Amino acid sequence: MDTVAFSDTDLAALPKHDRIRLINGLVGARPVHLLGTRSGSGVDNLALFNSAQHVGSSPALISVLFRPLEADCGVVRDSHDNLMETGSFTLNAVTPTLLEAAHRTAAKWPADQSEFQGVGLVPERVEGVVAPFVRGAPVQIGLDYVEQHRLCNATVLVIGAVRLVRVVKRGLESDHALSPSKAGALNVAGLDHYHRLVSHARLGRPD
Amino acid sequence: MDTVAFSDTDLAALPKHDRIRLINGLVGARPVHLLGTRSGSGVDNLALFNSAQHVGSSPALISVLFRPLEADCGVVRDSHDNLMETGSFTLNAVTPTLLEAAHRTAAKWPADQSEFQGVGLVPERVEGVVAPFVRGAPVQIGLDYVEQHRLCNATVLVIGAVRLVRVVKRGLESDHALSPSKAGALNVAGLDHYHRLVSHARLGRPD
Repeated sequence: MDTVAFSDTDLAALPKHDRIRLINGLVGARPVHLLGTRSGSGVDNLALFNSAQHVGSSPALISVLFRPLEADCGVVRDSHDNLMETGSFTLNAVTPTLLEAAHRTAAKWPADQSEFQGVGLVPERVEGVVAPFVRGAPVQIGLDYVEQHRLCNATVLVIGAVRLVRVVKRGLESDHALSPSKAGALNVAGLDHYHRLVSHARLGRPD
Repeated sequence: MDTVAFSDTDLAALPKHDRIRLINGLVGARPVHLLGTRSGSGVDNLALFNSAQHVGSSPALISVLFRPLEADCGVVRDSHDNLMETGSFTLNAVTPTLLEAAHRTAAKWPADQSEFQGVGLVPERVEGVVAPFVRGAPVQIGLDYVEQHRLCNATVLVIGAVRLVRVVKRGLESDHALSPSKAGALNVAGLDHYHRLVSHARLGRPD
């Protein structure tokens, strides 16, 4: 195969934004979610995340990675503050229909303004979950804060326990496997290259 | 939208494998990698991972999540032992061509047998990286161990620093964005449902 190699010295020598694009894209295309929280004073917050990760099934745990909280990172910092205050957050899968509004939540919004209003998305309230869900998201996950870990570069891995799941029927197989292609969930490669998913093969468990 | 809701009680009441399928699928379709390591005695190891995550760009850091090491988890345990012994591991993106062999690395293999031979994949050695790469993988990342965090469910998040990147030319855009669709990298939904990626939209940075 015709390949290009980059040593760590080569990476360091790239123009800054080229380096960031390349390194952000290394792991492949990640699922995209709107992370919903609600402040103690009742302001809803939405932020775009591409780091939701399955941590375990029993109990059901999911992690998300926050950028360094010391940095000025707007809605992401607001999300973390809210999450610590209420212990509640939601993850909402992003579809092509939701994408343009979802992407705009990454702009800078004042802390006292809800991104829902700013970008034109509609919050859904579900009893027992403080944080808002996003109407139209085909997979909605309500989580309670469990713990966090500060990683070596000051990013913060937050782990939540799954309390409520709402899934669009067309995305749910008869054996309860969840199909992101049928649900219409998007992934993102690097910083801003959104991708759809197409079923390739479902393999059994290897022996 | 026509949705199905599951409370934590509903989730707990599902048949075990249905619950595992549903919870594993919640976050969406994750990139698939073969993680390569080499033991101190020179046996190469490969294990299938779907948890590679971008942690930071400066320095370039990537994490992977290991199942609890106390459990009997075969090649995954071998991978972690090797990684601790040599400090080196690789991540190799999986394509449709590599998939069948890659999936079979998840079977149980004895510690003294290389999964490369067992499943018919070819190791590639690159000077300066102890762990083997997988020939034919369109994105190959060589990493050095940095730190690990034990999470609340005894899974272990390992963080590595990127030392070497080799990318197939067709996957690299002129601005160094990496296109997983052009590279042919697969994602997996839940435990075993592999998906291809199709470019949907590349959006700019929101203001």
